[in-house]
Amino acid sequence: MNVDGKHFRTVWVDKDEQPIVKIIDQTKLPFAFEIENLDSVESLVSAIKNMHVRGAGCIGVTAAYGMWLAANQSRGSYSQLESLASKILEARPTATNLSWAVKRQLDLVAKNKNENWITLTLNEANKISDEDARWCNEIGNHGKKILYDIAKNKNNSSPVNILTHCNAGWLAFADWGSATSPIYCAHREGLSVHVWVDETRPLNQGARLTSWELANEGVPHTIIPDNTGGHLMRSGMVDVVITGTDRTNSYGDVANKIGTYLKALAATDNGIPFYVALPSSTFDWDTAEGGGDIPIEQRDSDEVMNIEGLNSEGKISSIAVSLDSFNYANYAFDVTPSRLVSGLITERGICNASRDGIMGLFPEKINN
Amino acid sequence: MNVDGKHFRTVWVDKDEQPIVKIIDQTKLPFAFEIENLDSVESLVSAIKNMHVRGAGCIGVTAAYGMWLAANQSRGSYSQLESLASKILEARPTATNLSWAVKRQLDLVAKNKNENWITLTLNEANKISDEDARWCNEIGNHGKKILYDIAKNKNNSSPVNILTHCNAGWLAFADWGSATSPIYCAHREGLSVHVWVDETRPLNQGARLTSWELANEGVPHTIIPDNTGGHLMRSGMVDVVITGTDRTNSYGDVANKIGTYLKALAATDNGIPFYVALPSSTFDWDTAEGGGDIPIEQRDSDEVMNIEGLNSEGKISSIAVSLDSFNYANYAFDVTPSRLVSGLITERGICNASRDGIMGLFPEKINN
Repeated sequence: MNVDGKHFRTVWVDKDEQPIVKIIDQTKLPFAFEIENLDSVESLVSAIKNMHVRGAGCIGVTAAYGMWLAANQSRGSYSQLESLASKILEARPTATNLSWAVKRQLDLVAKNKNENWITLTLNEANKISDEDARWCNEIGNHGKKILYDIAKNKNNSSPVNILTHCNAGWLAFADWGSATSPIYCAHREGLSVHVWVDETRPLNQGARLTSWELANEGVPHTIIPDNTGGHLMRSGMVDVVITGTDRTNSYGDVANKIGTYLKALAATDNGIPFYVALPSSTFDWDTAEGGGDIPIEQRDSDEVMNIEGLNSEGKISSIAVSLDSFNYANYAFDVTPSRLVSGLITERGICNASRDGIMGLFPEKINN
Repeated sequence: MNVDGKHFRTVWVDKDEQPIVKIIDQTKLPFAFEIENLDSVESLVSAIKNMHVRGAGCIGVTAAYGMWLAANQSRGSYSQLESLASKILEARPTATNLSWAVKRQLDLVAKNKNENWITLTLNEANKISDEDARWCNEIGNHGKKILYDIAKNKNNSSPVNILTHCNAGWLAFADWGSATSPIYCAHREGLSVHVWVDETRPLNQGARLTSWELANEGVPHTIIPDNTGGHLMRSGMVDVVITGTDRTNSYGDVANKIGTYLKALAATDNGIPFYVALPSSTFDWDTAEGGGDIPIEQRDSDEVMNIEGLNSEGKISSIAVSLDSFNYANYAFDVTPSRLVSGLITERGICNASRDGIMGLFPEKINN
């Protein structure tokens, strides 16, 4: 999508340069727009761990390019390539796309050991990035119909009010985003929309990233504390909730940023549709119904105690919200059970959040 | 309760001084413990508006002492007293205790116009403060039974895990608190408890005040982002939720800090009891079933954009979480419908969150 009118993806390679993966350092947004060069698997793993890149698709694409760096570093040793792949895999445990992309690259090399691994993995990473962008665009084309239907039902009397949590925008993918894609597609066509942006503590991806994205695309929006959505829904100020997901199982149980479950409960309690948008790469075809076996990452408690922002001198800095002698806990995700999800918006269309619904769209996965 | 081992109330008068109301400036906690002198109705209104004092009971007691300042300033003019009372009433629109205390003082003076208004209002303010502290203590004596029952049911195998939202602690009253009082009473008797403290954005009263209170009383606790409670409840890490309330109607619908409704939904979804603790002064006997006519205060959006804390130099300062060119909304309260509330813990005992339950404990209000 656009940054000051110029098109960017979140991760890319500049062909004229040495093996370097370029990313937008998302920890600096919205205060500064900085491009970071990753010249080794180690620096790429660090960038993922420290959330310079984050979000399901973006992590996947970054990991795919990471395997290109790994191919450069492994000098023809497959065990070395596997060892570097392990490092990438360990960067974020909950993100499905990460392991999906790494395995796809490993399998490709395993099947084509006699070819040039560097060329193979670079082409495949580009393909994964293109696929991610195309799938997200398709999610928008399917999902925008939901917004048009809502607008029609309210006789276009006011903007369609969408609430979203965290950042499932283009910054979380190669391009377009998942939850934001229907919004971007409809808005570009002229539909009147307004987005309630959950700030999304502890790391404030909503306040910092989603709002910045929406502003760059000219989409009206309002940042709210995570506590606010329930009141807005009870008061008729939300027409639909759309979130992304870090991992959704084949039964429609949705692991997403901590706090998603609370919004799904509020939507259900108020008869408001709650949709989850995802490319099929985010499906986890292996875990069990209910989502109880999806690992929930616990991150450093410092992320809760210290909040980063812009100080009065205009510098990015952090403050402690309370004393460091106190205890803090930092669970990064929760699981929203499928019964609270109105539907899944995928690149192939919209389906029920159920085994039957998902298998209807992805019949080739039935034997999984 | 205790601060560094010395007993304090949140608001008090030093008899040897000029008409001055003393408060703990809660905006400085937990980083600094500062006592502030309020020498006029205007400074007292400002202290309430800017949340140097906050919380249902504490606002009520402060307002009661404010009427003593008003009596000093009005020099025997009842219309002047009423005019100053109006200023106090306008300081926070959602807080029932504020209007309750101001009206109680106004009525007292109206009925005893020939007596010394200054003495009258000071004695009444002291009485209101004592009553508030006693009622809160009684809430603890009734509510601790809930915690003992939970401990018994889990065979004291682990601490009783209580989740609370915002600060309904002693800082929100004259003493003891509402939601915290059962915890303090049980903990002082030796029951093993642990409190999950919602940080409570935007003003972080949980992270800053509740945690500080609990630490001073030696109660084990962990600060969590407001997004976290749902996951904890789904994962069996919460035994009971206890919150306070800024206003509860006679049908058991509960207005409390924004986000309370989301926790009530999660508790209900997981079969976890959700209790609301309140002295009877917080009941609003006049508003209608459902809580739709309870006014929801909208506060300055700067409170969402700017977060206050301790910077790296150890100074209280604030940072902007995102750009000031973006829009922010700041709804201070939400309403939790009575169907989500397991019970109300009052100074007279525990009752169902229903008209029948409440009238059973407060039969004198039946004709309201």
